Amino acid sequence: MHISRAGRRPPPGRIAYVDGRYIRHGAAGVHVEDRGLQFADSVYEVIAVSNARLVDAAPHILRLEKSLSSIGMAMPVCPASLAVILNETARRNQLREGLLYLQITRGAAPRAHAAPDDTSPTVIVTAKRMDASLMETRRAAGVAVMTTADIRWARCDIKSTGLLPNVLAKTEARKQGADEAWFVDGDGFVTEGSSTNAWIVGGDGEPITRSLRDNILAGITRGVLLQALSDAGIAARERAFSVEEAYGAREAFISSATGGVIPVVKIDGKPVGSGAIGPVAKQMHALYCELSRKISMV
Amino acid sequence: MHISRAGRRPPPGRIAYVDGRYIRHGAAGVHVEDRGLQFADSVYEVIAVSNARLVDAAPHILRLEKSLSSIGMAMPVCPASLAVILNETARRNQLREGLLYLQITRGAAPRAHAAPDDTSPTVIVTAKRMDASLMETRRAAGVAVMTTADIRWARCDIKSTGLLPNVLAKTEARKQGADEAWFVDGDGFVTEGSSTNAWIVGGDGEPITRSLRDNILAGITRGVLLQALSDAGIAARERAFSVEEAYGAREAFISSATGGVIPVVKIDGKPVGSGAIGPVAKQMHALYCELSRKISMV
Repeated sequence: MHISRAGRRPPPGRIAYVDGRYIRHGAAGVHVEDRGLQFADSVYEVIAVSNARLVDAAPHILRLEKSLSSIGMAMPVCPASLAVILNETARRNQLREGLLYLQITRGAAPRAHAAPDDTSPTVIVTAKRMDASLMETRRAAGVAVMTTADIRWARCDIKSTGLLPNVLAKTEARKQGADEAWFVDGDGFVTEGSSTNAWIVGGDGEPITRSLRDNILAGITRGVLLQALSDAGIAARERAFSVEEAYGAREAFISSATGGVIPVVKIDGKPVGSGAIGPVAKQMHALYCELSRKISMV
Repeated sequence: MHISRAGRRPPPGRIAYVDGRYIRHGAAGVHVEDRGLQFADSVYEVIAVSNARLVDAAPHILRLEKSLSSIGMAMPVCPASLAVILNETARRNQLREGLLYLQITRGAAPRAHAAPDDTSPTVIVTAKRMDASLMETRRAAGVAVMTTADIRWARCDIKSTGLLPNVLAKTEARKQGADEAWFVDGDGFVTEGSSTNAWIVGGDGEPITRSLRDNILAGITRGVLLQALSDAGIAARERAFSVEEAYGAREAFISSATGGVIPVVKIDGKPVGSGAIGPVAKQMHALYCELSRKISMV
C-alpha cells in the first residue's frame, strides 16, 4: 500500500470481502449462476458498527448459523474466523459508524432447484458508512408506519434473502409517506415490520411485541432489548397485538440492528397516543444501548 | 472470429448475455449489491430450445412482462429486442436442444429495502445444452412425486427468484427418491409442483389442474396444453384437487417448459392407477408438442 511522505495513508476506497479476498467494492461480484441470485438460496445478517466496534456480533453470528442450518447448510467458516473477517472488513473500510452486510449463499452451480451436495458457499461482506446523526434525527422526530397484509412465506424465522414481499411493502410505505410497513396476519394481528420488529406500549405501560412462535424473525435487537428490560426489572409481554390495539396504544416503536429503537408516532395516518415521542421508547433505546455496549465489552 | 481453413468454426465456449454484452459464461457476473442477489428483487423465465427453435417464446415474454409489472418494473427492452437477444444467445451457443434462462433484476444499488427509482435493471440470459433423450427416458418411465406443505408466499403468480421454499421442497423430494414435490395448501389441496404444474386424470378421463385464481404460477406449458385440449375438443377442468383424490386418480402428470408433459407413476410412494404410464399423459404430450410447434411457426 502506498504511504505518503507525511506517513498518512490516503483514505481507502470501499473494500468488500468475497470468498476469501478483500477487493475493491465496485469490482465485487458473484457468478450469474450463484444460487443466491437464481434461487434466493442464501441467508444474511446486518451488523451495526458503532464507535468502530461491532454491535451484538455474537448473537448475529449465532442466528446466521441457525438460518444456515434451517436450509441444510453448515457454517462455511467457524464463528471466530467469521468475526475476524467482519472486523477486518470494518478496519479496511475505516468504518467507525455504519453497517456490515454479511451474506452467505449456497454457491454457484449449474441451475437446478435441488441443492447440490458439492458447491462451495459464497461468503460476502460489504461495509457502508452511515451518518449516525441521521438516525438520531429519526429517533427524535419519530416515524410513520403503514400496515399491509402479510403475504410472506411460513418460515420468516429464517433470515433468507427472499425479501421481495418486504421490498414491495417498504416501497409502498415510502410512496404513502411512511418509513416502515407493518405486516398484518390473516387474523388482524401485526407480525413485524418489513425490516424491523414491531412494538407497542399497552395501557399498563408494558412493552408488547409478538412472540417468536408466530412466524417472525428473532430480531437480535429485539432479543437484547427484552434481556435489558428483564435486567432492569421491567415487565414486557411477548404476545400478538392487533392493528386496532396498536391504533389505541400509548406508544409504539420499531427495533432493528440498523436503528436500535425508533419511536413510531403515526400508524396508517393516525397519531399514536399524543402523537409525540413517548417516555417508554426513549427509555427502551437507552437500556438497549447500555446492555449492547456491555455485551460488546465481554 | 477465427474461421478454420475448411470453413468450419471451432465449437464455441459457452456464452452468456449480461447487460448488453455477450461474454464468456465463466466470467458472467453481477455486482454483490445487485438487488437480485440481496433481495430476490427479480423475475425470470426458462425457455426450451428444440431443434434450434425457441419453444413458446411469445407467451414466456408476455408472462415476464406481467411479472415485472407486478413488482413495479417495466420491460427494460421491448419484447422484439428481447426475442433477438434470446435467439442470439442460442445461436452463439450453437444450442439445438436445451434451455435458455432469462433473469431480470431491479439492478444494483446501495442496499435499502425500498425500490430505488433510478437503477438500471440487470438483464441476464444463459444457455444450457440438454440431452433430449434424458427427458424422453423420464417420459417413458414416469416419475415419482412426494407431497409437502405449501409454505410459499401469497403471490406465486409472480415468477420471482424467491425460490428458497421450492429449493427446500425439491431437495427433500430427491432425498426421498422422488423427482418432484407437490405443494399442498392448508385445506389439503395440491397447488403445484416446485418447478412444474400438477395434473391428474379424473374418473371420467378428464384432465384436471388447479385454477390460476388459487395462488399458482400461470405455467406456459400448462396454458398451451389447455389450448391444445380445447382445440382437440377434449374437456379439461381447472379446479383444485386434493391429495386423496390424486392418490385415487387414474393417471397423474406434471407439465413444464423443461419437460413438456411427464407422467407421474407414484405419489408419496403409492402407485397412481395401475402404476404404469397411462394413455392420457401420452396423448397430452403429443397434443402439446403439436400445438407448440404450430405456434412457433407463426
